[in-house]
Amino acid sequence: MENRITKLFGIKYPIIQAGMIWCSGWRLASAVSNSGGLGLIGAGSMYPEVLTEHLQKMKQATERPFGVNVPLLYPDIDKLMEIILKEGVKIVFTSAGNPATWTSHLKSQGITVVHVIANKKFAQKAVDAGVDALVAEGFEAGGHNGKEETTTLCLIPDIVRSVHVPVIAAGGIGSGEAIASMLALGAEGVQIGSLFAASAESSAHENFKRAIVDAKEGDTRLMMKKVVPVRLLKNRFYQLIEEAENRGAEREELQQILGRARAKKGMFQGDMDEGELEIGQISGMIDEIKTASQIMAELVDSYNQCLERIYPMKM
Amino acid sequence: MENRITKLFGIKYPIIQAGMIWCSGWRLASAVSNSGGLGLIGAGSMYPEVLTEHLQKMKQATERPFGVNVPLLYPDIDKLMEIILKEGVKIVFTSAGNPATWTSHLKSQGITVVHVIANKKFAQKAVDAGVDALVAEGFEAGGHNGKEETTTLCLIPDIVRSVHVPVIAAGGIGSGEAIASMLALGAEGVQIGSLFAASAESSAHENFKRAIVDAKEGDTRLMMKKVVPVRLLKNRFYQLIEEAENRGAEREELQQILGRARAKKGMFQGDMDEGELEIGQISGMIDEIKTASQIMAELVDSYNQCLERIYPMKM
Repeated sequence: MENRITKLFGIKYPIIQAGMIWCSGWRLASAVSNSGGLGLIGAGSMYPEVLTEHLQKMKQATERPFGVNVPLLYPDIDKLMEIILKEGVKIVFTSAGNPATWTSHLKSQGITVVHVIANKKFAQKAVDAGVDALVAEGFEAGGHNGKEETTTLCLIPDIVRSVHVPVIAAGGIGSGEAIASMLALGAEGVQIGSLFAASAESSAHENFKRAIVDAKEGDTRLMMKKVVPVRLLKNRFYQLIEEAENRGAEREELQQILGRARAKKGMFQGDMDEGELEIGQISGMIDEIKTASQIMAELVDSYNQCLERIYPMKM
Repeated sequence: MENRITKLFGIKYPIIQAGMIWCSGWRLASAVSNSGGLGLIGAGSMYPEVLTEHLQKMKQATERPFGVNVPLLYPDIDKLMEIILKEGVKIVFTSAGNPATWTSHLKSQGITVVHVIANKKFAQKAVDAGVDALVAEGFEAGGHNGKEETTTLCLIPDIVRSVHVPVIAAGGIGSGEAIASMLALGAEGVQIGSLFAASAESSAHENFKRAIVDAKEGDTRLMMKKVVPVRLLKNRFYQLIEEAENRGAEREELQQILGRARAKKGMFQGDMDEGELEIGQISGMIDEIKTASQIMAELVDSYNQCLERIYPMKM
């Protein structure tokens, strides 16, 4: 199979592993790239020197294409970008910020740039900034999310018809069947988070991986809409936010409850009570910790079987 | 094409038109049934004598299979059910209530029974009650909705793997591509609401149809979660609810703001300011009022083209 996404990145399968904070280090990203997908290092939770270390290990671990995800609100972003250029990164996914700020600079250095969006307005802004592709992420995705609450099923066709660049679907995708359903909607690739967050190579704490495996339907919820919407796994911290939101708490109070470093505490240090646990709705369908290569092989197999199954269903 | 859903109902295409309040009378339902889908009369907004009239006109208008949607919380439900039996209705979709109450009675009269659910717990309850199929409805659907906020993309595979009866996907489906994506996820049919709410044969007020056509991404939102979650099109009434919810208003106040007959006022009488306008997120993609037969033909065409397009995409 070949399409604009496989050609853009030089990969075998149009499957991208999301560059998630506290989960996506060189071990996970290289395992995905070595399995024919595109591995992304999640720079959002890394100090500049940690990113350097991960990039150097990454280049030892794979000769295949890989990328880095950079949240544009990262406080020391100039330093991150400098490292990205110095270490010769070829693919950058940007998120959580204005795509106009960095896209043309990165492009002028020969870097392929993809921006993550959750609505048409930002899709257009990113296209105007010159990105090569978009990740369109729906309401069911883990972590930070759009205010419009548009689900992947509604978002993808709307973005596909409104831009000319290839669209990578994200949010709620955890099976080959879901990949087929996204390609049916016109996406040319998928970005998968939760499934890889719970993989053997993820840098997440074992407690968090087990919590993902144990999660059932209805165990995540989009919260903090008065600050920045974020999909959380329900725990004690979640309950604090829920209680505050139910009584109409304002932005300031919510930010105070959140405090600092809660995501690290939960996802990386394994505090399942007090930590902020960012994960997608599809966690309810994840029942086992697997290696990234096993995940990739199963995705490709079930995707191919799905195409065989539905093709005879002509109406 | 033949599957468990087309065989269960005796229809050509596994496309069901949702039995929506104030939209789904005999004109719409017969047009859909005559086009090879399954038309449903929405009894939820009908007095018993109005339902009788619609059923009698329906039987004049089509010889094809059709059904009735009955919200189980309907106050005078015994009378509705009596009429359904008396008029010889063969297919009943139940929603918004306990499937155990009526399923076995209807089944004993030879009626095919389908129940609408939004989570696994109710899916199991409905299967235990003996239903022939389920409609699994995701967060993006219009009108009343589940508390878990599970999107169609996440809900369908989870329900499909947990029950043995065929699953009809609902919420966010407005194109042949979306139908293909639902069959990829394991659904055997789809239920489509918003697209038919805006059709020429819908009994909705012209103002409401135009509002659906004008709706853009982000123009609907799931509200009233402290009462019963309902997806609304944004208008003045919506703003009242939003303002109240933002300051933590409780159930009683929200119910007081809602008052009575707001849905009728908006959807049927055309008051776009004060009415309660129930519509799905996919309304953002609906750009034109079409006849039901045109909608059906386009769905089938684009579905078939989609299967041809994705089949060569083997990985």
